[in-house]
Amino acid sequence: MVDVAPVAEAGRFPAKSTVGEAFPISATVFREGHDAFGAEAVLVRPDGTEADRVRMAETGTGLSRYEAWVSADATGDWTFRVESWSDPWATWVHDAQIKVPAGIDADLMMAEGARLLARAANRRGTQEPDRAARTLLRAAADTLADAETVPVERLRAVLSPQVHDAFARFPVRDLLTVSPDYPLQVDRPLAVAGAWYEMFPRSAGAWYDRATGQWVSGTLRTAASEIPRIAAMGFDVVYLTPIHPIGTTFRKGRNGSLEALPGDPGSPYAIGSPDGGHDAIEPTLGTFEDFDAFVSVARANGLEVALDLALQCSPDHPWVTEHPEWFAHRADGTIAYAENPPKKYQDIYPLYFDADPKGLQAEIRRVIQVWIDHGVTAFRVDNPHTKPLPFWQSLLADIRAEHPDVLFLSEAFTKPAMMLTLAKCGFHQSYTYFAWRNTKAELEEYLATVGGEQGAWMRPSFWPTTHDILTPYMQTGGVAGFAIRAVLAALGAPTWGIYSGYELVENIARPGVEEQIDNEKYEFRPRDWSAGDGRGIALLLGRLNEIRDAHPALRQLRNVRIHPCDNEQMVCFSRHLAPEHSPTGRRDVVITVVNIDPWHAQEGWIHLDLAALGLPVDEPLKVVDQLTGQSYTWRADSFVQLAPERSCAHIMTVSPS
Amino acid sequence: MVDVAPVAEAGRFPAKSTVGEAFPISATVFREGHDAFGAEAVLVRPDGTEADRVRMAETGTGLSRYEAWVSADATGDWTFRVESWSDPWATWVHDAQIKVPAGIDADLMMAEGARLLARAANRRGTQEPDRAARTLLRAAADTLADAETVPVERLRAVLSPQVHDAFARFPVRDLLTVSPDYPLQVDRPLAVAGAWYEMFPRSAGAWYDRATGQWVSGTLRTAASEIPRIAAMGFDVVYLTPIHPIGTTFRKGRNGSLEALPGDPGSPYAIGSPDGGHDAIEPTLGTFEDFDAFVSVARANGLEVALDLALQCSPDHPWVTEHPEWFAHRADGTIAYAENPPKKYQDIYPLYFDADPKGLQAEIRRVIQVWIDHGVTAFRVDNPHTKPLPFWQSLLADIRAEHPDVLFLSEAFTKPAMMLTLAKCGFHQSYTYFAWRNTKAELEEYLATVGGEQGAWMRPSFWPTTHDILTPYMQTGGVAGFAIRAVLAALGAPTWGIYSGYELVENIARPGVEEQIDNEKYEFRPRDWSAGDGRGIALLLGRLNEIRDAHPALRQLRNVRIHPCDNEQMVCFSRHLAPEHSPTGRRDVVITVVNIDPWHAQEGWIHLDLAALGLPVDEPLKVVDQLTGQSYTWRADSFVQLAPERSCAHIMTVSPS
Repeated sequence: MVDVAPVAEAGRFPAKSTVGEAFPISATVFREGHDAFGAEAVLVRPDGTEADRVRMAETGTGLSRYEAWVSADATGDWTFRVESWSDPWATWVHDAQIKVPAGIDADLMMAEGARLLARAANRRGTQEPDRAARTLLRAAADTLADAETVPVERLRAVLSPQVHDAFARFPVRDLLTVSPDYPLQVDRPLAVAGAWYEMFPRSAGAWYDRATGQWVSGTLRTAASEIPRIAAMGFDVVYLTPIHPIGTTFRKGRNGSLEALPGDPGSPYAIGSPDGGHDAIEPTLGTFEDFDAFVSVARANGLEVALDLALQCSPDHPWVTEHPEWFAHRADGTIAYAENPPKKYQDIYPLYFDADPKGLQAEIRRVIQVWIDHGVTAFRVDNPHTKPLPFWQSLLADIRAEHPDVLFLSEAFTKPAMMLTLAKCGFHQSYTYFAWRNTKAELEEYLATVGGEQGAWMRPSFWPTTHDILTPYMQTGGVAGFAIRAVLAALGAPTWGIYSGYELVENIARPGVEEQIDNEKYEFRPRDWSAGDGRGIALLLGRLNEIRDAHPALRQLRNVRIHPCDNEQMVCFSRHLAPEHSPTGRRDVVITVVNIDPWHAQEGWIHLDLAALGLPVDEPLKVVDQLTGQSYTWRADSFVQLAPERSCAHIMTVSPS
Repeated sequence: MVDVAPVAEAGRFPAKSTVGEAFPISATVFREGHDAFGAEAVLVRPDGTEADRVRMAETGTGLSRYEAWVSADATGDWTFRVESWSDPWATWVHDAQIKVPAGIDADLMMAEGARLLARAANRRGTQEPDRAARTLLRAAADTLADAETVPVERLRAVLSPQVHDAFARFPVRDLLTVSPDYPLQVDRPLAVAGAWYEMFPRSAGAWYDRATGQWVSGTLRTAASEIPRIAAMGFDVVYLTPIHPIGTTFRKGRNGSLEALPGDPGSPYAIGSPDGGHDAIEPTLGTFEDFDAFVSVARANGLEVALDLALQCSPDHPWVTEHPEWFAHRADGTIAYAENPPKKYQDIYPLYFDADPKGLQAEIRRVIQVWIDHGVTAFRVDNPHTKPLPFWQSLLADIRAEHPDVLFLSEAFTKPAMMLTLAKCGFHQSYTYFAWRNTKAELEEYLATVGGEQGAWMRPSFWPTTHDILTPYMQTGGVAGFAIRAVLAALGAPTWGIYSGYELVENIARPGVEEQIDNEKYEFRPRDWSAGDGRGIALLLGRLNEIRDAHPALRQLRNVRIHPCDNEQMVCFSRHLAPEHSPTGRRDVVITVVNIDPWHAQEGWIHLDLAALGLPVDEPLKVVDQLTGQSYTWRADSFVQLAPERSCAHIMTVSPS
């Protein structure tokens, strides 16, 4: 037995799962000669007791790859292993079924079968059958030994469902081989599945005072008034961009201009002023009391609060004077600001982790604790790939030990190896390249990638836009483009998120840049939500979250399957959950077909792999579109027509058969 | 740094190489932020001293995969590792080249560069530069500090080849990361590269005695008379099918018939008779003295002798009575013969390894030693996949410890996982699926597979036919088919082999079976070698081996590259060896184009990746066909015409530029 999966670097990085998440354990298993063998995946609880043991089945033909799906029922540090063994009963059954009817060695086969059944019945210790099985196996041995009956009848008698079941429950395992125990980190469900909503709290309730000619900032209190609206759309997490004091030195103005005008609020990512640093709140937003009130309202509305963790400082951050050793210094004694030559970012001092790694980590740990103590349960980490991996590994392990439910989302738009390794180092979920995967080929490949082997470490979060990202597709696709990408995000990954303003189809970019014009990073942006009512996006977002809540298959990662569709502008994929992994005990299947062309109606044939979904292959399928409520009768090959905008997709559930 | 390769099961199975074989060490390397870094592959001798250290280069764009090619210069248990580090000099050069010409921070960059050069010069210990480098680096520091010169001139002065060379030889390595040491088994060159010739010694010199109406067996002495002919074709190894006493119980007759007629010699794979077992010689073949003489003639002709190791017994084998515990017994007390229900192979008793594994292994070890003591240097192991893997792992490790030059070839035509794991367990080389890879797509995929990552464990041996294998392509392709497959085998893998009679284009199958009619396994088959002269295959075989001997690139495994060709019946691939890995110190490039259609001339465009071969991309290329001696001038895109039979292929060498 070799190549057990999911295992990274021989177990140095634990594989991940969440409570109730079905995932595959696989291994390459083979043996010498032609005799039969068995293999099982064994799931072990943190206390060392066996939680589950599932027989593995070959996934292809001839490649010796075996797989079983399991799921854990509690958080913690689990392990798993694979066991394989010689299966003499299966070998005997195989041979007997060929030889006895052909009259070859029939008596000998009877004698050998009886001997094996007796051995199976008389086992003691770990393989010992229960009383009922023992009795059954002994009776079967007697049946085979009964010379009064013809061998073919004796064989038929022992190949009963009961004997089969006895061996399934108490298999005879000769030459047992056991893999090492491999680590499995089980997190709470929100680590893999959730709907996030990003907002700049200062925009909510901000207003322009014509009397003074100045803007008045929104506050945490006015931001809290947005929460019922966000909750009504079914989101699980409200994520706030940084709420800390903002520096004034080299403060950026509107649209990132190098000089701020009076009244420009500055980027919340330029953290730190005389009012404090990462453990403080920007005074114009309010106080810790206001923050606590925000968290209370969120919780009352069923939302968790996530905070941005942007580990960088404005030149005015208290750390700059109190801990100069936490910053890199140039040869002339000045602190090195961020730059990507020839570009300079003089409003930002990166942290320097090499001089006092322990002191800096302890301070960051303290800061995070401040927010955990005030009810923050998730952190969206800005640019983690610019900080050392050992720092993250140590910090996140430390926090997980004390606060296993606090989640960290990695915002690393960088090389795939770094993104994956950040996930392995402890981030619970990760932003992805979803925003840049727009064609059918790109989407099909990407859905399979993030939902494949990689999913054991990197849990994807799909965002159609963020405050930093507005792709050409989103700039040009209009309302339909926003609808299409919302469907793809909400169904394509179990975690998805939108950035405030998505409801209004805000799609105008600053010229030459793939981000919003008049970016909220640098100015107040209060919004009139009723302006979007006619476009229906808010309703769609709410409906998507409703569908996700109603269908556990949609809150799973590794169950995605692409189905062929002969139109290059249509993508078809499914998520399904077998009855044994479904909280309802019933099979859950959702088939999504999306027209990714925001301008034209499209039609084509889809070809569903019904067997892979556990559905009958030859029967008509009653499906119901969860977006429209309309019913259809499908077969494996079905014709689909989809228009842009409101009917850009089918989200089909299948009636239980 | 993650995913160091070649590493199997965290180092449980050593990677393999041979003396002088170039192979890649790779790893995924990346770091936080934008600073430069370096990575090196380090090759370490069995005594722990460093043999080579090669800077790794990125193999793609953005995937963070780095690679360096190395080669070991002696056999033994080597190790390798990967080191990576922050490269402050490369970071400074990158930034300075942008900022100084643009007048940004020029003085500061000068000061920082001077500080770094001084630090580099003053290093002590493992990174300490030699005296010349130290002087050079100090002078460069002074140059940068020289305020009399404009910064851009100072920069130009220090970006000299000399300073570059000093840093290349003595890189500044900050934040050094070192991988574990991984095992590397280095074998002698024949383990990866050689030309094998298979023969049944009893056929050579056998004759039909009309007087008695009986066949007279060839002997080891008459077989030895074939050796000069085999050596003249340039083969390296003569492999003898089993030469042990053959059983008479259930002896198979001609064409595998269940009843042998008087005079039928029986299959040499039914080993053992009252004359002895695996440590004895069939009396009609001769004595150990005759065997020693055979080995002497072979050695005098530059050939090594390989013997078949078929671990199974005829019912007449001495072990059957002396060691019944080495055989499986049925319920009725009889010994289990081989079967694949409903097929029975009553002439063969498989060995049973579970009752007395140590005793059986010791006896097999003793038998092998008998043949090693008589000059056998390689064993072709029949059906190793029907014996337990732990047996092979233990046996082959034991033999390698005492006889590191004795090679084992695995004849396992079974599931890929088993084939690969046998190689990992100690077999030096393996038969492959080459015989069944006939189309362009199949060949291109297979050449890349066996020469890719898998090549670190499984060394492929390409055989167009064996005494057991005669594929439809070989049955129907005529002389051209035999020529085409010889070229593909000899150039497609560094180890290839043919079965005696290939020279005569013996291509008639027993009806319904993919093997020779009148199979030599069951009868004598003396051959008139002059009958093949007109067909030219023997000449072709000799020429192929000559070309292989003259070109070290052809005796390498992991240097194969497929080049596109727009004709579906033509395959183009190359092997190349960089000057630093070539025994001549010069680049060696061989480009092979084969018309795989045995019936029609074919023509088409080939598109050579010249850059990958280390050749100038835009210049005309002078190539010489080693089969015909004709010269051509090629470019990256060249038009090729090939007829079947004698001009079925170009084997082009490139003149050194």
